[in-house]
Amino acid sequence: MKKAIVLTSGGLDSLTCLALAQQSFDEVHALSFNYGQHHVAELEAAKRITEKMNIHHHIVECQFLGAMGGSALTDDSIAVEDYDPEGGIPATYVPSRNIIFMSIALAYAEIIGSSDIFIGISSVDYSGYPDCRPEFIDAFQKMADLGTKVGSEGQPIRFHTPLSLLSKAETVLLGTKHGVDYGMSVSCYRADTDGRACGTCDSCMLRKKGFEEAGLIDPTHYY
Amino acid sequence: MKKAIVLTSGGLDSLTCLALAQQSFDEVHALSFNYGQHHVAELEAAKRITEKMNIHHHIVECQFLGAMGGSALTDDSIAVEDYDPEGGIPATYVPSRNIIFMSIALAYAEIIGSSDIFIGISSVDYSGYPDCRPEFIDAFQKMADLGTKVGSEGQPIRFHTPLSLLSKAETVLLGTKHGVDYGMSVSCYRADTDGRACGTCDSCMLRKKGFEEAGLIDPTHYY
Repeated sequence: MKKAIVLTSGGLDSLTCLALAQQSFDEVHALSFNYGQHHVAELEAAKRITEKMNIHHHIVECQFLGAMGGSALTDDSIAVEDYDPEGGIPATYVPSRNIIFMSIALAYAEIIGSSDIFIGISSVDYSGYPDCRPEFIDAFQKMADLGTKVGSEGQPIRFHTPLSLLSKAETVLLGTKHGVDYGMSVSCYRADTDGRACGTCDSCMLRKKGFEEAGLIDPTHYY
Repeated sequence: MKKAIVLTSGGLDSLTCLALAQQSFDEVHALSFNYGQHHVAELEAAKRITEKMNIHHHIVECQFLGAMGGSALTDDSIAVEDYDPEGGIPATYVPSRNIIFMSIALAYAEIIGSSDIFIGISSVDYSGYPDCRPEFIDAFQKMADLGTKVGSEGQPIRFHTPLSLLSKAETVLLGTKHGVDYGMSVSCYRADTDGRACGTCDSCMLRKKGFEEAGLIDPTHYY
Protein backbone atom coordinates (compact mmCIF):
# COMPACT_ATOMS: atom_id res chain seq x y z
CA MET A 1 0.00 0.00 0.00
CA LYS A 2 1.83 3.09 -1.23
CA LYS A 3 0.69 6.22 0.60
CA ALA A 4 1.36 9.82 -0.43
CA ILE A 5 0.81 13.04 1.47
CA VAL A 6 -0.04 16.21 -0.43
CA LEU A 7 0.16 19.68 1.12
CA THR A 8 -3.21 21.06 0.06
CA SER A 9 -4.04 24.75 0.25
CA GLY A 10 -7.04 24.45 -2.04
CA GLY A 11 -5.31 26.45 -4.79
CA LEU A 12 -4.38 25.58 -8.34
CA ASP A 13 -0.95 24.07 -7.66
CA SER A 14 -1.96 21.78 -4.81
CA LEU A 15 -4.96 20.59 -6.83
CA THR A 16 -2.56 19.64 -9.63
CA CYS A 17 -0.37 17.76 -7.13
CA LEU A 18 -3.37 15.85 -5.79
CA ALA A 19 -4.18 14.68 -9.31
CA LEU A 20 -0.57 13.64 -9.97
CA ALA A 21 -0.25 11.82 -6.64
CA GLN A 22 -3.51 9.99 -7.16
CA GLN A 23 -2.19 8.47 -10.37
CA SER A 24 0.85 6.86 -8.75
CA PHE A 25 -0.22 6.05 -5.19
CA ASP A 26 -2.77 3.69 -3.64
CA GLU A 27 -3.78 6.11 -0.92
CA VAL A 28 -3.52 9.90 -0.93
CA HIS A 29 -3.73 12.01 2.25
CA ALA A 30 -4.32 15.73 1.78
CA LEU A 31 -3.03 17.93 4.62
CA SER A 32 -4.49 21.42 4.93
CA PHE A 33 -3.67 24.04 7.53
CA ASN A 34 -5.99 26.39 9.33
CA TYR A 35 -3.47 29.03 10.32
CA GLY A 36 -5.60 32.12 10.64
CA GLN A 37 -5.44 33.02 6.96
CA HIS A 38 -8.05 35.60 5.99
CA HIS A 39 -8.85 33.76 2.78
CA VAL A 40 -10.45 30.74 4.47
CA ALA A 41 -12.30 30.15 1.19
CA GLU A 42 -9.21 28.15 0.15
CA LEU A 43 -9.86 25.70 3.00
CA GLU A 44 -13.45 25.29 1.87
CA ALA A 45 -12.14 24.64 -1.63
CA ALA A 46 -9.74 22.01 -0.24
CA LYS A 47 -12.68 20.27 1.44
CA ARG A 48 -14.76 20.22 -1.76
CA ILE A 49 -11.82 19.08 -3.88
CA THR A 50 -10.78 16.19 -1.63
CA GLU A 51 -14.38 15.08 -1.21
CA LYS A 52 -14.93 15.03 -4.96
CA MET A 53 -11.61 13.24 -5.57
CA ASN A 54 -12.28 10.76 -2.77
CA ILE A 55 -9.07 11.69 -0.95
CA HIS A 56 -8.46 11.54 2.83
CA HIS A 57 -8.45 15.10 4.12
CA HIS A 58 -6.89 16.27 7.37
CA ILE A 59 -7.10 19.87 8.53
CA VAL A 60 -4.31 20.76 10.97
CA GLU A 61 -5.09 23.53 13.44
CA CYS A 62 -2.16 25.96 13.42
CA GLN A 63 -3.81 29.09 14.75
CA PHE A 64 -0.57 29.99 16.51
CA LEU A 65 0.93 30.98 13.15
CA GLY A 66 -1.71 33.59 12.36
CA ALA A 67 -1.71 34.78 15.96
CA MET A 68 1.98 35.68 15.62
CA GLY A 69 1.08 38.13 12.82
CA GLY A 70 3.78 39.44 10.53
CA SER A 71 2.01 38.70 7.25
CA ALA A 72 -0.67 40.37 5.14
CA LEU A 73 -2.42 36.99 4.94
CA THR A 74 -3.05 36.82 8.68
CA ASP A 75 -2.51 40.27 10.16
CA ASP A 76 -5.29 42.86 9.85
CA SER A 77 -2.81 45.71 10.11
CA ILE A 78 -0.89 44.67 6.95
CA ALA A 79 -2.58 45.15 3.54
CA VAL A 80 -2.48 42.60 0.71
CA GLU A 81 -0.97 44.61 -2.14
CA ASP A 82 -1.63 44.34 -5.85
CA TYR A 83 0.85 42.33 -7.90
CA ASP A 84 4.20 44.04 -8.43
CA PRO A 85 6.78 41.92 -10.26
CA GLU A 86 9.56 44.29 -9.16
CA GLY A 87 8.44 44.58 -5.55
CA GLY A 88 10.69 41.96 -3.92
CA ILE A 89 9.30 39.51 -1.38
CA PRO A 90 5.70 40.72 -0.89
CA ALA A 91 3.85 41.41 2.37
CA THR A 92 1.92 38.16 1.87
CA TYR A 93 5.06 36.21 2.86
CA VAL A 94 4.28 34.21 6.02
CA PRO A 95 7.46 33.63 8.07
CA SER A 96 8.49 29.95 8.01
CA ARG A 97 5.11 28.86 6.65
CA ASN A 98 6.36 26.18 4.27
CA ILE A 99 9.00 25.11 6.79
CA ILE A 100 6.33 24.55 9.44
CA PHE A 101 3.88 22.86 7.06
CA MET A 102 6.56 20.55 5.62
CA SER A 103 7.71 19.68 9.16
CA ILE A 104 4.19 18.71 10.16
CA ALA A 105 3.79 16.67 6.97
CA LEU A 106 7.04 14.92 7.83
CA ALA A 107 5.70 13.91 11.26
CA TYR A 108 2.49 12.69 9.69
CA ALA A 109 4.35 10.71 7.01
CA GLU A 110 6.51 8.97 9.60
CA ILE A 111 3.46 8.07 11.67
CA ILE A 112 1.28 6.69 8.86
CA GLY A 113 4.19 5.02 7.06
CA SER A 114 4.31 7.20 3.97
CA SER A 115 7.59 7.84 2.16
CA ASP A 116 6.35 10.52 -0.21
CA ILE A 117 5.23 14.09 0.33
CA PHE A 118 4.06 16.33 -2.52
CA ILE A 119 4.24 20.11 -2.36
CA GLY A 120 3.06 22.26 -5.25
CA ILE A 121 5.62 25.02 -5.09
CA SER A 122 7.05 26.63 -8.18
CA SER A 123 10.02 28.90 -8.66
CA VAL A 124 9.02 30.08 -12.14
CA ASP A 125 5.77 32.10 -11.96
CA TYR A 126 5.92 32.83 -8.24
CA SER A 127 5.98 35.65 -5.73
CA GLY A 128 9.65 35.36 -4.84
CA TYR A 129 9.04 33.59 -1.53
CA PRO A 130 12.38 32.11 -0.36
CA ASP A 131 10.66 28.89 0.76
CA CYS A 132 9.56 28.07 -2.80
CA ARG A 133 13.04 27.75 -4.30
CA PRO A 134 14.62 24.40 -5.29
CA GLU A 135 17.72 25.05 -3.15
CA PHE A 136 15.48 25.42 -0.10
CA ILE A 137 13.72 22.13 -0.85
CA ASP A 138 17.09 20.38 -1.28
CA ALA A 139 18.25 21.72 2.08
CA PHE A 140 14.99 20.71 3.76
CA GLN A 141 15.34 17.20 2.34
CA LYS A 142 18.87 16.86 3.79
CA MET A 143 17.68 18.13 7.18
CA ALA A 144 14.71 15.74 7.15
CA ASP A 145 16.94 12.79 6.29
CA LEU A 146 19.07 13.51 9.35
CA GLY A 147 16.36 14.56 11.77
CA THR A 148 13.83 11.73 11.50
CA LYS A 149 14.02 8.15 12.73
CA VAL A 150 13.20 6.68 9.31
CA GLY A 151 15.66 9.01 7.60
CA SER A 152 18.47 8.22 10.04
CA GLU A 153 17.75 4.53 9.49
CA GLY A 154 18.21 4.85 5.74
CA GLN A 155 14.57 4.99 4.64
CA PRO A 156 14.08 8.70 4.04
CA ILE A 157 10.79 10.40 3.32
CA ARG A 158 11.04 12.06 -0.07
CA PHE A 159 9.69 15.51 -0.92
CA HIS A 160 8.29 15.78 -4.46
CA THR A 161 7.94 19.16 -6.15
CA PRO A 162 6.64 18.22 -9.60
CA LEU A 163 5.74 21.83 -10.50
CA SER A 164 8.99 23.37 -9.33
CA LEU A 165 10.33 24.22 -12.77
CA LEU A 166 7.01 24.65 -14.58
CA SER A 167 5.44 27.96 -15.55
CA LYS A 168 1.84 28.45 -14.44
CA ALA A 169 0.77 27.81 -18.06
CA GLU A 170 2.65 24.50 -18.11
CA THR A 171 1.06 23.55 -14.78
CA VAL A 172 -2.51 24.15 -15.96
CA LEU A 173 -1.82 22.31 -19.22
CA LEU A 174 -0.44 19.35 -17.25
CA GLY A 175 -3.39 19.33 -14.86
CA THR A 176 -5.94 19.70 -17.66
CA LYS A 177 -4.36 16.70 -19.41
CA HIS A 178 -5.00 14.77 -16.17
CA GLY A 179 -8.62 15.85 -16.00
CA VAL A 180 -8.28 18.51 -13.30
CA ASP A 181 -11.25 20.87 -12.88
CA TYR A 182 -9.56 24.12 -11.87
CA GLY A 183 -12.91 25.79 -11.27
CA MET A 184 -12.94 23.99 -7.90
CA SER A 185 -9.71 25.64 -6.71
CA VAL A 186 -9.36 29.02 -4.98
CA SER A 187 -6.03 30.88 -5.26
CA CYS A 188 -6.94 34.47 -4.42
CA TYR A 189 -5.42 36.09 -1.31
CA ARG A 190 -8.53 38.28 -1.04
CA ALA A 191 -11.10 35.62 -1.89
CA ASP A 192 -14.56 36.31 -0.50
CA THR A 193 -16.47 33.69 1.48
CA ASP A 194 -17.95 32.31 -1.75
CA GLY A 195 -14.44 31.75 -3.11
CA ARG A 196 -14.68 34.54 -5.69
CA ALA A 197 -11.39 36.22 -6.59
CA CYS A 198 -10.13 39.82 -6.77
CA GLY A 199 -8.15 39.37 -9.98
CA THR A 200 -5.33 41.75 -8.99
CA CYS A 201 -3.33 40.17 -6.12
CA ASP A 202 -0.10 38.21 -6.76
CA SER A 203 -1.84 34.91 -6.70
CA CYS A 204 -4.65 35.99 -9.06
CA MET A 205 -2.29 37.63 -11.54
CA LEU A 206 -0.03 34.58 -11.79
CA ARG A 207 -3.04 32.27 -12.15
CA LYS A 208 -4.74 34.45 -14.77
CA LYS A 209 -1.50 34.73 -16.77
CA GLY A 210 -1.20 30.93 -16.65
CA PHE A 211 -4.58 30.32 -18.27
CA GLU A 212 -3.95 33.06 -20.85
CA GLU A 213 -0.54 31.71 -21.87
CA ALA A 214 -1.89 28.17 -21.98
CA GLY A 215 -4.76 29.26 -24.24
CA LEU A 216 -7.30 27.81 -21.80
CA ILE A 217 -10.52 29.35 -20.55
CA ASP A 218 -9.99 30.77 -17.04
CA PRO A 219 -12.67 29.15 -14.85
CA THR A 220 -12.04 31.53 -11.93
CA HIS A 221 -15.05 33.39 -10.53
CA TYR A 222 -14.08 37.04 -10.07
CA TYR A 223 -16.07 39.50 -7.97
CA MET B 1 17.69 45.54 22.05
CA LYS B 2 19.06 42.01 21.57
CA LYS B 3 16.32 39.39 21.81
CA ALA B 4 16.81 35.65 22.23
CA ILE B 5 14.30 32.84 21.95
CA VAL B 6 14.74 29.70 24.06
CA LEU B 7 12.88 26.46 23.40
CA THR B 8 11.65 25.68 26.89
CA SER B 9 10.30 22.26 27.86
CA GLY B 10 10.63 22.92 31.58
CA GLY B 11 13.39 20.33 31.92
CA LEU B 12 16.96 20.60 33.08
CA ASP B 13 18.57 21.45 29.74
CA SER B 14 16.16 24.19 28.72
CA LEU B 15 16.43 25.75 32.17
CA THR B 16 20.21 25.88 31.70
CA CYS B 17 19.73 27.53 28.30
CA LEU B 18 17.39 30.14 29.79
CA ALA B 19 20.09 31.08 32.31
CA LEU B 20 22.78 31.27 29.62
CA ALA B 21 20.59 33.34 27.28
CA GLN B 22 19.62 35.73 30.06
CA GLN B 23 23.28 36.59 30.61
CA SER B 24 23.91 37.73 27.03
CA PHE B 25 20.59 39.12 25.80
CA ASP B 26 18.43 42.09 26.77
CA GLU B 27 15.17 40.24 26.32
CA VAL B 28 14.55 36.50 26.51
CA HIS B 29 11.42 34.82 25.12
CA ALA B 30 10.72 31.27 26.25
CA LEU B 31 8.66 29.18 23.83
CA SER B 32 6.90 26.11 25.23
CA PHE B 33 4.70 23.67 23.37
CA ASN B 34 1.49 22.07 24.49
CA TYR B 35 1.52 19.09 22.16
CA GLY B 36 -0.55 16.56 24.05
CA GLN B 37 2.37 15.24 26.11
CA HIS B 38 1.23 13.15 29.06
CA HIS B 39 3.82 14.75 31.31
CA VAL B 40 2.18 18.19 31.36
CA ALA B 41 3.97 18.81 34.64
CA GLU B 42 6.88 20.00 32.50
CA LEU B 43 4.72 22.83 31.15
CA GLU B 44 3.78 23.84 34.68
CA ALA B 45 7.48 23.82 35.52
CA ALA B 46 8.18 26.04 32.50
CA LYS B 47 5.57 28.50 33.77
CA ARG B 48 7.07 28.64 37.27
CA ILE B 49 10.63 28.93 35.96
CA THR B 50 9.93 31.77 33.52
CA GLU B 51 7.87 33.64 36.09
CA LYS B 52 10.64 33.38 38.67
CA MET B 53 13.31 34.37 36.11
CA ASN B 54 11.15 37.24 34.79
CA ILE B 55 11.23 35.88 31.24
CA HIS B 56 8.49 36.29 28.60
CA HIS B 57 6.72 32.97 28.25
CA HIS B 58 4.67 31.86 25.25
CA ILE B 59 2.87 28.53 25.14
CA VAL B 60 2.21 27.38 21.59
CA GLU B 61 -0.80 25.10 21.12
CA CYS B 62 0.32 22.14 19.01
CA GLN B 63 -2.30 19.58 19.94
CA PHE B 64 -2.17 18.23 16.40
CA LEU B 65 1.17 16.61 17.18
CA GLY B 66 -0.12 14.51 20.06
CA ALA B 67 -3.32 13.74 18.14
CA MET B 68 -1.21 12.08 15.43
CA GLY B 69 0.06 9.59 18.01
CA GLY B 70 3.14 7.50 17.22
CA SER B 71 5.02 8.23 20.46
CA ALA B 72 4.95 6.92 24.02
CA LEU B 73 4.87 10.55 25.20
CA THR B 74 1.51 11.24 23.58
CA ASP B 75 -0.11 7.92 22.67
CA ASP B 76 -1.88 5.94 25.39
CA SER B 77 -1.32 2.69 23.52
CA ILE B 78 2.50 2.98 23.65
CA ALA B 79 4.28 2.50 26.99
CA VAL B 80 7.16 4.65 28.26
CA GLU B 81 9.90 2.07 28.83
CA ASP B 82 12.63 2.09 31.45
CA TYR B 83 16.05 3.33 30.36
CA ASP B 84 17.95 0.90 28.12
CA PRO B 85 21.26 2.26 26.82
CA GLU B 86 21.40 -0.49 24.15
CA GLY B 87 17.76 -0.17 23.06
CA GLY B 88 18.17 2.09 20.02
CA ILE B 89 15.84 5.04 19.46
CA PRO B 90 13.25 4.64 22.25
CA ALA B 91 9.46 4.71 22.00
CA THR B 92 9.48 8.20 23.51
CA TYR B 93 10.75 9.56 20.19
CA VAL B 94 8.16 12.01 18.83
CA PRO B 95 8.32 12.15 15.02
CA SER B 96 9.67 15.50 13.81
CA ARG B 97 9.17 17.12 17.20
CA ASN B 98 12.33 19.21 17.25
CA ILE B 99 11.91 19.98 13.55
CA ILE B 100 8.42 21.36 14.17
CA PHE B 101 9.39 23.24 17.34
CA MET B 102 12.48 24.79 15.72
CA SER B 103 10.39 25.79 12.68
CA ILE B 104 7.86 27.55 14.88
CA ALA B 105 10.67 29.27 16.80
CA LEU B 106 12.08 30.41 13.47
CA ALA B 107 8.76 32.03 12.51
CA TYR B 108 8.55 33.70 15.89
CA ALA B 109 12.15 34.96 15.68
CA GLU B 110 11.55 36.49 12.27
CA ILE B 111 8.38 38.23 13.48
CA ILE B 112 9.79 39.71 16.71
CA GLY B 113 13.17 40.54 15.16
CA SER B 114 15.31 38.07 17.05
CA SER B 115 18.43 36.59 15.45
CA ASP B 116 19.17 33.98 18.11
CA ILE B 117 17.38 30.77 19.10
CA PHE B 118 18.64 28.52 21.90
CA ILE B 119 17.85 24.84 22.07
CA GLY B 120 19.14 22.67 24.91
CA ILE B 121 19.83 19.48 23.00
CA SER B 122 22.81 17.29 23.77
CA SER B 123 24.33 14.42 21.86
CA VAL B 124 26.38 13.10 24.79
CA ASP B 125 24.07 11.85 27.56
CA TYR B 126 20.97 11.50 25.39
CA SER B 127 18.38 9.01 24.23
CA GLY B 128 19.69 8.63 20.68
CA TYR B 129 17.02 10.82 19.13
CA PRO B 130 18.17 11.71 15.58
CA ASP B 131 16.97 15.31 16.00
CA CYS B 132 19.46 15.95 18.82
CA ARG B 133 22.63 15.41 16.80
CA PRO B 134 24.96 18.24 15.70
CA GLU B 135 24.75 17.20 12.02
CA PHE B 136 20.98 17.63 12.19
CA ILE B 137 21.31 21.11 13.68
CA ASP B 138 23.83 22.08 10.99
CA ALA B 139 21.43 20.90 8.28
CA PHE B 140 18.50 22.73 9.91
CA GLN B 141 20.57 25.92 10.03
CA LYS B 142 21.35 25.70 6.30
CA MET B 143 17.69 25.06 5.51
CA ALA B 144 16.59 27.99 7.69
CA ASP B 145 19.11 30.32 6.02
CA LEU B 146 17.60 29.51 2.61
CA GLY B 147 13.94 29.30 3.59
CA THR B 148 13.39 32.54 5.49
CA LYS B 149 13.20 36.12 4.27
CA VAL B 150 15.85 37.34 6.71
CA GLY B 151 18.11 34.39 5.90
CA SER B 152 17.79 34.86 2.15
CA GLU B 153 18.59 38.55 2.65
CA GLY B 154 21.85 37.73 4.43
CA GLN B 155 20.74 38.22 8.05
CA PRO B 156 20.24 34.63 9.19
CA ILE B 157 18.69 33.57 12.47
CA ARG B 158 21.27 31.53 14.35
CA PHE B 159 20.54 28.36 16.31
CA HIS B 160 22.62 27.99 19.48
CA THR B 161 23.14 24.60 21.09
CA PRO B 162 25.45 25.40 24.02
CA LEU B 163 24.95 21.97 25.63
CA SER B 164 25.43 19.93 22.48
CA LEU B 165 28.81 18.49 23.42
CA LEU B 166 28.40 18.54 27.21
CA SER B 167 27.67 15.54 29.40
CA LYS B 168 24.72 15.91 31.76
CA ALA B 169 27.23 16.37 34.61
CA GLU B 170 28.97 19.19 32.75
CA THR B 171 25.57 20.79 32.07
CA VAL B 172 24.49 20.81 35.72
CA LEU B 173 27.90 22.11 36.79
CA LEU B 174 27.63 24.90 34.22
CA GLY B 175 24.10 25.78 35.31
CA THR B 176 24.93 25.64 38.99
CA LYS B 177 27.82 28.04 38.36
CA HIS B 178 25.24 30.40 36.87
CA GLY B 179 22.91 30.11 39.84
CA VAL B 180 20.35 27.75 38.32
CA ASP B 181 17.92 26.10 40.75
CA TYR B 182 17.35 22.70 39.16
CA GLY B 183 14.71 21.82 41.72
CA MET B 184 12.32 23.95 39.64
CA SER B 185 12.74 21.81 36.53
CA VAL B 186 10.84 18.63 35.61
CA SER B 187 12.49 16.12 33.26
CA CYS B 188 10.58 12.89 33.90
CA TYR B 189 8.53 11.36 31.07
CA ARG B 190 6.19 9.90 33.68
CA ALA B 191 6.03 12.91 35.99
CA ASP B 192 2.89 13.09 38.10
CA THR B 193 0.79 16.23 38.25
CA ASP B 194 2.90 17.51 41.16
CA GLY B 195 6.02 17.22 39.00
CA ARG B 196 7.42 14.27 40.95
CA ALA B 197 9.61 11.88 38.95
CA CYS B 198 9.70 8.09 38.42
CA GLY B 199 13.48 7.78 38.57
CA THR B 200 13.73 5.02 35.96
CA CYS B 201 12.76 6.43 32.53
CA ASP B 202 15.42 7.59 30.03
CA SER B 203 15.10 11.18 31.07
CA CYS B 204 15.29 10.46 34.82
CA MET B 205 18.27 8.11 34.47
CA LEU B 206 20.30 10.60 32.45
CA ARG B 207 19.43 13.42 34.86
CA LYS B 208 20.23 11.35 37.96
CA LYS B 209 23.55 10.21 36.46
CA GLY B 210 24.38 13.86 35.76
CA PHE B 211 24.00 14.97 39.37
CA GLU B 212 25.91 11.88 40.61
CA GLU B 213 28.85 12.40 38.25
CA ALA B 214 28.93 16.11 39.06
CA GLY B 215 28.98 15.39 42.78
CA LEU B 216 25.93 17.57 43.32
CA ILE B 217 22.85 16.87 45.41
CA ASP B 218 20.00 15.76 43.14
CA PRO B 219 17.09 18.11 43.94
CA THR B 220 14.57 15.99 42.01
CA HIS B 221 11.40 14.94 43.85
CA TYR B 222 10.83 11.24 43.19
CA TYR B 223 7.53 9.47 43.89
